[in-house]
Amino acid sequence: MDTRSSASAELTTEEKASLTSGENFWETKALDRVGVPSIYLTDGPHGVRKQTGGGDHLGIGDSVPATCFPPAVALGSTWDSDLLEAVGRALGDEAKSEGVGVLLGPGINIKRSPLCGRNFEYLSEDPILSGRLGAALVDGLQGRGVGASLKHFAANNQETDRLRVSADIDARPLHEIYLRGFRHVVEHAAPWTVMCSYNRINGVYASENRWLLTDVLRGEWGFDGLVVSDWGAVSNRVAALSAGLDLEMPSTNGVTDAQIVAAVESGALAQSALDTAAERVLALVEKVRSNLDPSADYDRDAHHALARDVAARSVVLLKNDGILPLDPTANTTIAVIGEFARTPRYQGAGSSQIVPTRLDNALDEIRTLAVGPEITFAPGYSLDESDSATNTLVDEAVSLAASAEIAVVFLGLPAEDESEGFDREHLELPAAQTELLDAVLAANPRVVVVLSNGSVVRVSGWAGRVPAIMEGWLLGQAGGGAVADVLFGVVNPSGRLAETIPVRLEDTPAYLDFPGEAGHVRYGEGLFVGYRYYDSRDVAVSFPFGHGLSYTSFDYSAPAATRTAAGLEVALTVTNTGPRDGREVVQVYVGVPGSAVARPVRELKGFVNVDIAAGASESVRIPIPFEDLAYFDAALSRWVVEGGDYRVWVGASSRDLRGEVVVTVEGDAPLPVLTAESTIGEWLAHPVGSEILGEALAQTAGSGVFDDPSLLRMAASMPLNRVAAFPGSPIGAEQLDALVRRAERPPRVMTDHARGGRS
Amino acid sequence: MDTRSSASAELTTEEKASLTSGENFWETKALDRVGVPSIYLTDGPHGVRKQTGGGDHLGIGDSVPATCFPPAVALGSTWDSDLLEAVGRALGDEAKSEGVGVLLGPGINIKRSPLCGRNFEYLSEDPILSGRLGAALVDGLQGRGVGASLKHFAANNQETDRLRVSADIDARPLHEIYLRGFRHVVEHAAPWTVMCSYNRINGVYASENRWLLTDVLRGEWGFDGLVVSDWGAVSNRVAALSAGLDLEMPSTNGVTDAQIVAAVESGALAQSALDTAAERVLALVEKVRSNLDPSADYDRDAHHALARDVAARSVVLLKNDGILPLDPTANTTIAVIGEFARTPRYQGAGSSQIVPTRLDNALDEIRTLAVGPEITFAPGYSLDESDSATNTLVDEAVSLAASAEIAVVFLGLPAEDESEGFDREHLELPAAQTELLDAVLAANPRVVVVLSNGSVVRVSGWAGRVPAIMEGWLLGQAGGGAVADVLFGVVNPSGRLAETIPVRLEDTPAYLDFPGEAGHVRYGEGLFVGYRYYDSRDVAVSFPFGHGLSYTSFDYSAPAATRTAAGLEVALTVTNTGPRDGREVVQVYVGVPGSAVARPVRELKGFVNVDIAAGASESVRIPIPFEDLAYFDAALSRWVVEGGDYRVWVGASSRDLRGEVVVTVEGDAPLPVLTAESTIGEWLAHPVGSEILGEALAQTAGSGVFDDPSLLRMAASMPLNRVAAFPGSPIGAEQLDALVRRAERPPRVMTDHARGGRS
Repeated sequence: MDTRSSASAELTTEEKASLTSGENFWETKALDRVGVPSIYLTDGPHGVRKQTGGGDHLGIGDSVPATCFPPAVALGSTWDSDLLEAVGRALGDEAKSEGVGVLLGPGINIKRSPLCGRNFEYLSEDPILSGRLGAALVDGLQGRGVGASLKHFAANNQETDRLRVSADIDARPLHEIYLRGFRHVVEHAAPWTVMCSYNRINGVYASENRWLLTDVLRGEWGFDGLVVSDWGAVSNRVAALSAGLDLEMPSTNGVTDAQIVAAVESGALAQSALDTAAERVLALVEKVRSNLDPSADYDRDAHHALARDVAARSVVLLKNDGILPLDPTANTTIAVIGEFARTPRYQGAGSSQIVPTRLDNALDEIRTLAVGPEITFAPGYSLDESDSATNTLVDEAVSLAASAEIAVVFLGLPAEDESEGFDREHLELPAAQTELLDAVLAANPRVVVVLSNGSVVRVSGWAGRVPAIMEGWLLGQAGGGAVADVLFGVVNPSGRLAETIPVRLEDTPAYLDFPGEAGHVRYGEGLFVGYRYYDSRDVAVSFPFGHGLSYTSFDYSAPAATRTAAGLEVALTVTNTGPRDGREVVQVYVGVPGSAVARPVRELKGFVNVDIAAGASESVRIPIPFEDLAYFDAALSRWVVEGGDYRVWVGASSRDLRGEVVVTVEGDAPLPVLTAESTIGEWLAHPVGSEILGEALAQTAGSGVFDDPSLLRMAASMPLNRVAAFPGSPIGAEQLDALVRRAERPPRVMTDHARGGRS
Repeated sequence: MDTRSSASAELTTEEKASLTSGENFWETKALDRVGVPSIYLTDGPHGVRKQTGGGDHLGIGDSVPATCFPPAVALGSTWDSDLLEAVGRALGDEAKSEGVGVLLGPGINIKRSPLCGRNFEYLSEDPILSGRLGAALVDGLQGRGVGASLKHFAANNQETDRLRVSADIDARPLHEIYLRGFRHVVEHAAPWTVMCSYNRINGVYASENRWLLTDVLRGEWGFDGLVVSDWGAVSNRVAALSAGLDLEMPSTNGVTDAQIVAAVESGALAQSALDTAAERVLALVEKVRSNLDPSADYDRDAHHALARDVAARSVVLLKNDGILPLDPTANTTIAVIGEFARTPRYQGAGSSQIVPTRLDNALDEIRTLAVGPEITFAPGYSLDESDSATNTLVDEAVSLAASAEIAVVFLGLPAEDESEGFDREHLELPAAQTELLDAVLAANPRVVVVLSNGSVVRVSGWAGRVPAIMEGWLLGQAGGGAVADVLFGVVNPSGRLAETIPVRLEDTPAYLDFPGEAGHVRYGEGLFVGYRYYDSRDVAVSFPFGHGLSYTSFDYSAPAATRTAAGLEVALTVTNTGPRDGREVVQVYVGVPGSAVARPVRELKGFVNVDIAAGASESVRIPIPFEDLAYFDAALSRWVVEGGDYRVWVGASSRDLRGEVVVTVEGDAPLPVLTAESTIGEWLAHPVGSEILGEALAQTAGSGVFDDPSLLRMAASMPLNRVAAFPGSPIGAEQLDALVRRAERPPRVMTDHARGGRS
């Protein structure tokens, strides 16, 4: 018997099956006979959403109040692993105080399209950034003894038809973009659980995908935790358990447990598969149980303050002609315009929606900080769609703006536009808001726009006419104060775009095949997601990936790149050349111009946050492990570090590159194996093959194609055996066999990448 | 026994096998015992390339002189089926005079990327245009008793790795773009043979692709001719014959025939499969034999004259500020600049390369027509790459241009840039040529550029600075005279772009996944090939699909659209509002804005050529059959005419739309079948399902999600059975079964499309 099954050896098949699905919406089943308690799992990427009792029908009703931290869209914009770890710790403390054993997060799916209705729950369009930040949050959470559930595994990049749609993705983008972040979190932070997604991947449900849940997750990445289904993600319970899904949630009232028992009894399901799943549930229960602390509590004020700090770090200053920061002591008038200043949008709808412990709004916080200026307010628009008193609202706002020195205009997406469960169909702000902005600008061009939106909105219609823009995303319950902090320079902004703001929806990479049809969505853009697309096609964007301004300025020294045992290390000195202390996010992008495979022109491979006092310099070192340099070789079905010259840029965004260094990396690709199907071109390009073929041809007088360079170029794509089969071929079938035998040698590794690189 | 096998009943298995591969490079095997002669197949999309003897090793050496008509890139630009039929007739006459039974053409592969090295052999980026023109050429050729070979079937859209690469294409683009033209030619012109391509399609070699060669080609389209391999396209002869490949070419010296015999004897290959293939070869041989005419000959002068007419119709006048046409009687000086004026590029390299019966050049023809102007000439650049005397050549050209009233500058791609066998890597003209152009423009801005190129070149660097541009493509042996005819207005140009001229390579649809890697090329752009991409994404282009100017101008009346039994008919009146007789190509584009499936914003669905005398009006009618309106439904795996409002535009290019009419088309899509896996949204959108579900819910007090519009929107994508499985669901499993049983009715056709449409 499998040794893993020892602890469940005393259980009946029925008991084991019962362990592998929920008791109700949120709890696993207890086995009182053997003293196994139930544990509590609950939603919570940015706050602990514990429902009392077993939950309502869809599990999205009211819940116990908890700190609503900034959702992932904001957290991603911090580019700050330390901050995400701090959030993770706080979430852990709150979960513990509620007796919650596993928090269902973080969600690190790639933002393939800005239309995805759940983008506010995800970190970035980039897998390196998502993976690093996701791992930090898991570290923080689990450091407090509360399990994470890394989700939604995998390729759940849209809401449309999400319970059935097959995400059809080629091997390279699947590994390099959509799985890369998950791999990083699993390998570096070991989440207690991974949550399988609703969708199919290349035709197979994630919940039944043995390749995904077992071969890749456990076999390649070494995951040893538990796989839980997204709520309702199981289509065929027996197939799912067999594929590696350990725990189905929520309860099915015993229906699917009975299917498991029947399948084991009929032999359709291996007893060992059930034993393994039950063992994993028992192991998780034990981990949770041993960490429970009935006396745990948390400091609501401190968490609110943390939420404010994190929110301020999340704000991305997109544009600033110098109008910001506002002077809190000036004897002037500032018009605050926009209902969102008073009624904040601070999180999205669906399973992540928190009942906050309190809720700040920007208007009050601005008034608190503005000791000098008079603050006037007009809502400008209504959040109630049935309210049509727009002209009156606009007139009032314009009047205030005209009599103020500066107008701070709050715009954003209505709550009903962004939710789990459906996707957006456009990137537009409500027309009432952009019309308000136009009217205000006409009255007073000194305008600061503050945006509240969970996913990207089109700004190209007005961004050029506005002196300053703060992208505030959704900032959680303390976002109001954070916005005030940044407006008045209490916090010097350091947030960076974790997703590109495109000029138009038509420019977005997935525009032509989102959200798919007939049960399939083809990821036709392949590797070229987000900035990888815009930069590789050289498409204009409104604000590029990685962009974000500060109230100070930074100079970069020329970078150096050195080899290490683990990869490369990029080093440079950054100087704060401005008048304020500030924080810079130094980004490292890498491109491989002569690559044998398709590559984005550049890809993020590392980043670092650094606080630098005004006038001071800091040296920073950014490691780039080989695993991040590697591409997934589809033919070899393995990761390969390609040998060659790598361009390494340091920059303040994917389009604000401040320095470059070329590094020669020695790869780990095996020499290609020559066969009779190899082309003339491949034979001639091969160090062994060219020699062998050359010798053979030297013995063939007047060998036609091989004597004429232009014919040879035309014939280079012909497999040698096809040429040999042609009438009159200079190389016959027998000679070809001899050539192939001579070329057959064990594949040699060209060099060990560990010896790699020089700068 | 299969009745088709009767004629081969007396043959031995060895004899049958011998019939199904070549005797040498170009001939099938004779069977003297039973009086079966060999027949001759030869290259020839734009001329009969008959090699004497059995051909050289690659079959691309010298051949018997024949008329070199304009290659397909030029023929496609005529948009003129009558003209292609005339070319087909002429090719047939030449083939007959050489004893050739099958001419290996036309090639109608879609120009997926402008980089494809063989684009000069293909007609268009659009399948409707390719299909119509290809069918016309087949009609002309076969009308003369010579068989066509429709090629390269299918999805052979690049040269890189063409003998192995798998074109990975989703169902809709495969059917709607890459197979649609082939289908049209097969169904409307019944080519005697179809040539399978080298490449794989979704992993399976075309030569071994039973789905392609048998299920689709014969089963769906009713093809009853012979399938021949592209030369050397067979990887596994037994698998190929079994899949539906009747004839392997060229000879394999009996090697693969022996494999066939062994496979039949071992039972690995059905005797009936070999019988069928042998029967098809015998049927083709009989068709050829009965049409042979040893006395056949053709009029070389008349064919040269036809080649000139066709070439003139192929020229696309891209731009003209009025500088054209040139006055052949004016007492002035015209500087002709560019080696291509004296040494024409008139065809591409590879298997289509003809030895012409004669060869005109533009310089001589201009001198012949220019009875008034003095014609000076400077080569400007050298076609010999080793020749570096560029400065001298430029200086000479500039000097001539400065002293002339007008400079006609011939630019184009060097012959070595474009060939079968490899793809281009950029769209650029040689720098020496664009530098020459800059220098000439500086000396004299009155410049006419004449281009010679087999596939698109980037013109965006200079097009804005040049008063007139003639896209001359490759115009065959009489192209020199055709260029002169258009320059001097002897012919009023009517050519239209059959492929978009993009601003940059980076803008092209396949830019990010051409030519693929690791043996696969993903057609990630899907349906959005050529103008379908540029127009749907609203990407700027240099010159749009369908564009081409005339020396006169045309006005379009408002179009009307009426239903017919076969589809729609679009009618309008076109008036020649200018001073010259001219020919207009009226194009019909269709879009379906509210479509349930992804659609290009508009697609070409019909076109007509019409000659209109100066000042006259002509009414034109353009039929659009339902088959061209249909999309391929991937879920149903059939063509479907969607019901709804169709936008029908008439225009002079895909971006020069002159009128629009909306037509309501009644579709032929079956009502969706509701199952337990159908989503709440699908149930509610279904006329029967919504009723049933509504009744069920009415009996459920407080049914949670169904009572709350915002929750319902979120839950609309949930399959009903997943909701039913949730704890506390208002609909249980038993009730769900009852609902599904009630909804289970035979799928009804919503309406018969033959009753279709109103305008």
